[in-house]
Amino acid sequence: MKPFMDDDFLLQTPTAQTLYHQHAAPLPILDYHCHIDPRAIAEDRRYDNITALWLGGDHYKWRLMRAAGVPEREITGALGSDPRTVFRRYAQALPRAAGNPLYHWSHLELRRYFGIGAPLDARNADAVYDRCNERLRGPDMSARGILERSRVEVLCTTDDPADTLEWHDRLRRDGTFRTRVLPSFRPDKAMNIEKPDFAAYLDRLGTAAGLEIVSFDTLIEALKQRVLYFNERGGRVSDHALEYGLCEAAGRPELEDIFQAGREGRPVPPLDGAKFRTAVLCALAEDYARLDWVMQLHFGCLRDNNSAYARLGPDTGFDCVNAGSRPERMAALLDRMNAAGRLPRTILYSLNPADNETLMTVAGCFNADAPCPGRVQPGPAWWFNDHKPGMEKQLSDFAAGGLLGAFTGMLTDSRSLLSYPRHEYFRRILCNFLGNLAEGGEYPAEGEALSGLAEDISYYNTLRFFRLDTIGNRSDL
Amino acid sequence: MKPFMDDDFLLQTPTAQTLYHQHAAPLPILDYHCHIDPRAIAEDRRYDNITALWLGGDHYKWRLMRAAGVPEREITGALGSDPRTVFRRYAQALPRAAGNPLYHWSHLELRRYFGIGAPLDARNADAVYDRCNERLRGPDMSARGILERSRVEVLCTTDDPADTLEWHDRLRRDGTFRTRVLPSFRPDKAMNIEKPDFAAYLDRLGTAAGLEIVSFDTLIEALKQRVLYFNERGGRVSDHALEYGLCEAAGRPELEDIFQAGREGRPVPPLDGAKFRTAVLCALAEDYARLDWVMQLHFGCLRDNNSAYARLGPDTGFDCVNAGSRPERMAALLDRMNAAGRLPRTILYSLNPADNETLMTVAGCFNADAPCPGRVQPGPAWWFNDHKPGMEKQLSDFAAGGLLGAFTGMLTDSRSLLSYPRHEYFRRILCNFLGNLAEGGEYPAEGEALSGLAEDISYYNTLRFFRLDTIGNRSDL
Amino acid sequence: MKPFMDDDFLLQTPTAQTLYHQHAAPLPILDYHCHIDPRAIAEDRRYDNITALWLGGDHYKWRLMRAAGVPEREITGALGSDPRTVFRRYAQALPRAAGNPLYHWSHLELRRYFGIGAPLDARNADAVYDRCNERLRGPDMSARGILERSRVEVLCTTDDPADTLEWHDRLRRDGTFRTRVLPSFRPDKAMNIEKPDFAAYLDRLGTAAGLEIVSFDTLIEALKQRVLYFNERGGRVSDHALEYGLCEAAGRPELEDIFQAGREGRPVPPLDGAKFRTAVLCALAEDYARLDWVMQLHFGCLRDNNSAYARLGPDTGFDCVNAGSRPERMAALLDRMNAAGRLPRTILYSLNPADNETLMTVAGCFNADAPCPGRVQPGPAWWFNDHKPGMEKQLSDFAAGGLLGAFTGMLTDSRSLLSYPRHEYFRRILCNFLGNLAEGGEYPAEGEALSGLAEDISYYNTLRFFRLDTIGNRSDL
Repeated sequence: MKPFMDDDFLLQTPTAQTLYHQHAAPLPILDYHCHIDPRAIAEDRRYDNITALWLGGDHYKWRLMRAAGVPEREITGALGSDPRTVFRRYAQALPRAAGNPLYHWSHLELRRYFGIGAPLDARNADAVYDRCNERLRGPDMSARGILERSRVEVLCTTDDPADTLEWHDRLRRDGTFRTRVLPSFRPDKAMNIEKPDFAAYLDRLGTAAGLEIVSFDTLIEALKQRVLYFNERGGRVSDHALEYGLCEAAGRPELEDIFQAGREGRPVPPLDGAKFRTAVLCALAEDYARLDWVMQLHFGCLRDNNSAYARLGPDTGFDCVNAGSRPERMAALLDRMNAAGRLPRTILYSLNPADNETLMTVAGCFNADAPCPGRVQPGPAWWFNDHKPGMEKQLSDFAAGGLLGAFTGMLTDSRSLLSYPRHEYFRRILCNFLGNLAEGGEYPAEGEALSGLAEDISYYNTLRFFRLDTIGNRSDL
Repeated sequence: MKPFMDDDFLLQTPTAQTLYHQHAAPLPILDYHCHIDPRAIAEDRRYDNITALWLGGDHYKWRLMRAAGVPEREITGALGSDPRTVFRRYAQALPRAAGNPLYHWSHLELRRYFGIGAPLDARNADAVYDRCNERLRGPDMSARGILERSRVEVLCTTDDPADTLEWHDRLRRDGTFRTRVLPSFRPDKAMNIEKPDFAAYLDRLGTAAGLEIVSFDTLIEALKQRVLYFNERGGRVSDHALEYGLCEAAGRPELEDIFQAGREGRPVPPLDGAKFRTAVLCALAEDYARLDWVMQLHFGCLRDNNSAYARLGPDTGFDCVNAGSRPERMAALLDRMNAAGRLPRTILYSLNPADNETLMTVAGCFNADAPCPGRVQPGPAWWFNDHKPGMEKQLSDFAAGGLLGAFTGMLTDSRSLLSYPRHEYFRRILCNFLGNLAEGGEYPAEGEALSGLAEDISYYNTLRFFRLDTIGNRSDL
Repeated sequence: MKPFMDDDFLLQTPTAQTLYHQHAAPLPILDYHCHIDPRAIAEDRRYDNITALWLGGDHYKWRLMRAAGVPEREITGALGSDPRTVFRRYAQALPRAAGNPLYHWSHLELRRYFGIGAPLDARNADAVYDRCNERLRGPDMSARGILERSRVEVLCTTDDPADTLEWHDRLRRDGTFRTRVLPSFRPDKAMNIEKPDFAAYLDRLGTAAGLEIVSFDTLIEALKQRVLYFNERGGRVSDHALEYGLCEAAGRPELEDIFQAGREGRPVPPLDGAKFRTAVLCALAEDYARLDWVMQLHFGCLRDNNSAYARLGPDTGFDCVNAGSRPERMAALLDRMNAAGRLPRTILYSLNPADNETLMTVAGCFNADAPCPGRVQPGPAWWFNDHKPGMEKQLSDFAAGGLLGAFTGMLTDSRSLLSYPRHEYFRRILCNFLGNLAEGGEYPAEGEALSGLAEDISYYNTLRFFRLDTIGNRSDL
């Protein structure tokens, strides 16, 4: 029996252990997609208690507690007022979560940041709570301290085009902090033309871009300006949330009519919305391709399903996996960009793992004459799939249906500063996957090819695919 | 090499063996969903031959024999007239079914009830047939004897709202039988408004409820009366067969018009049918929630696909898995019930395993402030998925995407009195799953958390989720 | 650690090794579906260099090279002009393809045909290239030599109904070649009524059939004549590419109108196309059933997605997996054929592995009173699923949801003469699957049942299902 979460956690073979300890583990982290607040880093925020840092914004943990029957007043209802109770409730629920990634993430985080090795449960909850809070008073447990201890070399936040990026600017000018914090361009609000706040958003975006957005063309002009603004600040990546594959053609006059309907708050039928989004996406892709950015497309999520808890706002644990993928529209969209010579480096994410094979094979149609290996590729197992069997399936599907050696690897996609052990978790699973191939006689164990794959997928592929090697040190930005 | 189906069948590790033999195996069975005929139990039916008991109504076995090329005249055609031939044909086909659950179920049943350990095949078919029939003459091999030998503590049959439940009443008044046989409320006929027998069914239901069903409101009134009638007789659970997620709003006048169309045998368009079903379901959910019943929603099945065998009727082996799940409608339905404060404890079942992730995550949106852990949850692997890899996937998906410790566990969903080893099969797979987590260092092996999970998912979660602990002994009902 | 791809490659247990080496491996190959050019065999074609033979028409390998970042000019652009460079590029890309079937196929092919055991990479590319070319000059390395060395007993090519089958005729009359090369009937062009070349194709088909195709009825008559023509030449199998399940009823006058629209190049709406295809398919199925042919239905593929490379034509690596299966239409189609007593032996293939469960269970509805075991059944893992995890999933899904002993087994579906090790690959995976059942105590290891399954699925089931045992030697045709 393997000891509980020891040094060889998830590493089932000697080859896997060597790959991880000697090759993957020593490499720093490039977190190319997360939701950390740049202000927290710029201000080098500190945390009073483990609940604020660990349970404060983590809707994964809230769902777990709800499933365990914890009342909402002891979850989100008590986050500010009674942090010890919230922690106790989580500690009570956690042992029921065998086989859940939170079980492993939570214990990796308690070990790596707080030196706590015992499994968390109701009996040791108070002691662990106190010890963590004690530890949080250490000088190295500020936002920056945590990132440096985690060996995060680059971190890409998620930012609105209208954002001034002032916190990124401060960080860029600050010579004392080694982790590079880059903005990512996420223009969902400029594309969600059906939303009631679309017009108000256009005003904000126009202000940021220094022009008045009165037409489809001025909207595109404003967005393109902001792409450049982000690019000047080290932006290398964009991100879009789509419902599913979309590609609907429309001429300029029609797009103008649709835009005006949205701007004036008139109803925009779904097909018009798709035409508008297709056009904006293709216009932006032109710039992404020219600047050699990476375009991320996320889809397959149904959000905010529980109206009784609408008061908690978005991203509070009421989202689910959707069905109804449309691979032919995704293929048509990529083809349209590619035919125009404007297909950027692209990562496709679906929240539904039944889409793995369609994503992998759609991507594989658009790699001819690309500027890099794996120009279009599926991303790592996302959100509800970001667990051991999901990652193993993603690796197996990627390897069997594509070229594993081109995979750009892991991200955190997290709001939490403590989530960097997810890279460790991924690397262990990756090394175990590669180790199983070698130990099973399916890939040569000797030579450097195998360890090269482990190192590339852990670090170097990300470095090259996102061109983070061109960023250099802060003064270059 | 492990011996064929020995005591440690499916238990790959010492931890799995300990969990099963010391924790899961000793617990009695709570079969919260099956299709056993309560009359057979009330009359304590006996069986002349193993074919009648084992192959008489089992369309799983019929499909297997058809796939092996056995002509229908030697399957359903000979069930009454030539039971030995039917048994021979099954014995001939079975060895070809490596990897099929019937291979394991059949041998578990031959062992546990008939003491026959040799693999069944064409050569020993006659000897096994004779020995089984000899054994069936034993005093303990009546319907009740089989259930008591199987240690079935509670068994929920599947019943129409118009049913008088007379056999349940007889069993309830009978002090000699220890297994509690409870009715389940399955009002499909009251919801299938498009069916030609809808009007005739309304008359039957009205008679049972003691009122004339002339309107949508009187239909609801009749159903609600029958819910109370079932509740008084120990009913704790309902069951609905849906095509897929549905949630279509309609006002009372529109519902009345739709109802009258159905009652008068006029065509009911699909959307109208969905509006009608949504309204009935929401009205019933109100009572299920008030009475703290469990609502089961089954969907994703295409039935009766082979018209050349329509003469055999439904449930004769001509059904298949459907596609086209609509998670957004399922989420909308649950949200509508929840927003009205009327969301019962709910179990979701899809026949398509590609829906596992959508079901798991839809369910996870509706557990805030619930009266129990896992208020909405997916059920165990259903029907065509009720096999070793299907159950392993269901456990893995449940654990990774939800809270395994809240899982209500196994049922038989069977028409056969001999199907109780399916609980043994499930518990072995469950213990092996948990054992693998511990042996792989993914969950602590020491302490009581692990064995607690095995016991809860085998028995105690079911007891609590269905409130079977509130039923007490027969005299309380 | 198992050595890299040794004799026990993929065989994890002693039982698996015995099953493979003693039972599966010695059996010859029946390749019931491939895309090899019969002319190459009739002319006993020889190859100058390994690139022409190995990389010349293999879009699987092209996709791999594209994903590795190889420019198109060094892939398809250099096939004729600079074969060494293309080989070098493939050798460079291959080590990045851990976990990809090409990694195993390529090395099996280098071993079995060229005696090269070292893993191919950039460093040994030139030496391997030269050695392979040297080997290609051997007398046994012609098209026929390769097939005989591969122990291919029967090979079914893929042919248009208008084809004269002259190369098949020559092979049939040739007494010197032991492999039987049979035609397969693939009438896609006669069914794709929307295509611009439909009218021109009708002329060609009419010429072949010796009648003028001026109506729906004459089209059917022509096709039926060609079915007989193929049947006389040993044809035993047809093949159809469908988008997804279809079954749309139409009367004769309506079909005539649709036909005339297609013939005159007028637009044919999608529903009309489906009506037309349903009618042609049902008319042909009548003959397939009468002649006891096997009907293959392939669906779930989106083709030619990258318009920038349209110049390369179809089957050049720009296809992907589609979604949106319609099991209820597939069931309706099979039911219509079956109800009319005209359901042939049928193999269903979907490119989307999420359809496995629907295919398996739809098939299982149509096996009552069939002329053979597994009359309707899913085919082996197809194309993008033809890899180790895909085959393991297909075997597991087939076994759990159907009757594994009725499975007709493997094909190559390949354009390449060197792809026969795919049968070895399949048999190893099959024997490992069966070995795991026995070693895990899930199936008896003793007796002949287990080895019988290995032999039947490797060879005998194919022989019987396609009635290849009725073909006898060449002179009978």
